[in-house]
Amino acid sequence: MILGALEAGGTKMVCALGDVQGNLHERMRVPTRTPEETIPEIVAFFAGKGIHALGIGSFGPLDLNKTSPAFGNITTTPKPGWGDFPLRARLADALGVPVGIDTDVNAAALGEAKLGAGKGLHTIAYFTVGTGIGGGGMVNGGLLHGLMHPEMGHLRIPHDLAADPYPGCCPYHGDCLEGLACGPAIAGRWGAPAETLPGDHPAWALEARYLAYGVVCYILTLSPQRVVVGGGVMAQPRLMPLLRAEVLALLNGYLQAPAILEGIDAYIVPPALGSRAGVVGALALAENALEADHA
Amino acid sequence: MILGALEAGGTKMVCALGDVQGNLHERMRVPTRTPEETIPEIVAFFAGKGIHALGIGSFGPLDLNKTSPAFGNITTTPKPGWGDFPLRARLADALGVPVGIDTDVNAAALGEAKLGAGKGLHTIAYFTVGTGIGGGGMVNGGLLHGLMHPEMGHLRIPHDLAADPYPGCCPYHGDCLEGLACGPAIAGRWGAPAETLPGDHPAWALEARYLAYGVVCYILTLSPQRVVVGGGVMAQPRLMPLLRAEVLALLNGYLQAPAILEGIDAYIVPPALGSRAGVVGALALAENALEADHA
Repeated sequence: MILGALEAGGTKMVCALGDVQGNLHERMRVPTRTPEETIPEIVAFFAGKGIHALGIGSFGPLDLNKTSPAFGNITTTPKPGWGDFPLRARLADALGVPVGIDTDVNAAALGEAKLGAGKGLHTIAYFTVGTGIGGGGMVNGGLLHGLMHPEMGHLRIPHDLAADPYPGCCPYHGDCLEGLACGPAIAGRWGAPAETLPGDHPAWALEARYLAYGVVCYILTLSPQRVVVGGGVMAQPRLMPLLRAEVLALLNGYLQAPAILEGIDAYIVPPALGSRAGVVGALALAENALEADHA
Repeated sequence: MILGALEAGGTKMVCALGDVQGNLHERMRVPTRTPEETIPEIVAFFAGKGIHALGIGSFGPLDLNKTSPAFGNITTTPKPGWGDFPLRARLADALGVPVGIDTDVNAAALGEAKLGAGKGLHTIAYFTVGTGIGGGGMVNGGLLHGLMHPEMGHLRIPHDLAADPYPGCCPYHGDCLEGLACGPAIAGRWGAPAETLPGDHPAWALEARYLAYGVVCYILTLSPQRVVVGGGVMAQPRLMPLLRAEVLALLNGYLQAPAILEGIDAYIVPPALGSRAGVVGALALAENALEADHA
């Protein structure tokens, strides 16, 4: 059975065909322009391929309230043309198959939970650190929704202005977690893109501390069985060990959990599916949509 | 059908008899001394009353991993005699009925979700501000567990030492949320117990800001459909409106959710069950334990 996966990002759209085991058969990548330009390219990729369902992991914010008339719409994005765009409805109409949708980070969390670093677990947190900072997660086997969906990049965290005078780059909050620790914040603070900073640059210790505030928040709030941290900024190999050490330092022995105290290297981990997490998660969303349709 | 409820606190134990509708028939309160003194008093209250199951909402930390040999034990509390105490097992053995257990805050969250401020909702956050700060919650209808259970009082939050030189009172983290905003922190900072400070005292604006950091964290992480905030410190009537205003200020319009932007007074609310939330939740835990036993 062939399933379709769409990873809808602010800069690119990844379309893929695959199966319920997460195998990918075919893949295409197009830049994200306006919906009028981009949606027909997506439809053309999937049309006539015999997909049974489509799963979408999308940038947001999204309306994920199944009883809402705007279910599956992108809502308040500043991206030209995409504000209030009915992403799910448009693709469902064009392709005539069940379409599941969730945030890009929840899709990646689902992919990791099903076939990656969270396999066999029921409660995991997923974190991505790149152009922005996003979080998703699964609790008791279900993706985190509720009122809307997590937006944990915008947590307020301690910011010592004497040690780090960079004011933060979030247009809403200035020095929230994303404002202090996303890729553009690193570039803005140090005057050079993150990927050009060497592993012994002081940027990384500071980055680890800020990210640790976020990871500790997730640990204390969700009590995940594992925390998966991915995204472009994590490509610096020194960052993950620094992050684990900072999390332990911040918790300071308060949580007497051997999984954390003795097993931190297996507790805070990179995505096992790497950059495939989102697409594999979208395949799982397609599978769920198909099951819901048959129910 | 008669159910038993135990609200096990660090200073008092509340025992009650009730039913699945949350009606309470009989109630007893004893001070929490050592287990050798207190457990027999609890057993004596419930013995011979014909309860079909017992539900416990307890101070923690607790081992809530059902596959653990220490399931239902209090773990690392400094309270004399209660460290590693098998609370659930001892009461199950003595009473011979199914016994359910969860944290005091998860029990209160369950009570509010079933019969109080969260009725009809599937994802809520519950927060209590008193001698300590604790948080619990329900996601997609299930209580928050995972690795262990939430401990959200220990979040790290912004602390402007110039504006508030009080160093915090948490023995693990100093100025975490609990260290800055629990009842003893208010008393330590201002030199007088919280309940003696008038409503126009500057303590309350500062308290509202600190609590708002915690509530915002919960909103961004769990995306609850409602946030219930209780506990002794919230008895000051000025605090709840100040807290709502601070939450809106901190979010700064980022979450375009009418429930928050237009309905904050119905979004952040006191427990509808008041101080009964914990006991009513414990009755629901008893009911769940009975169902699990019959399954």
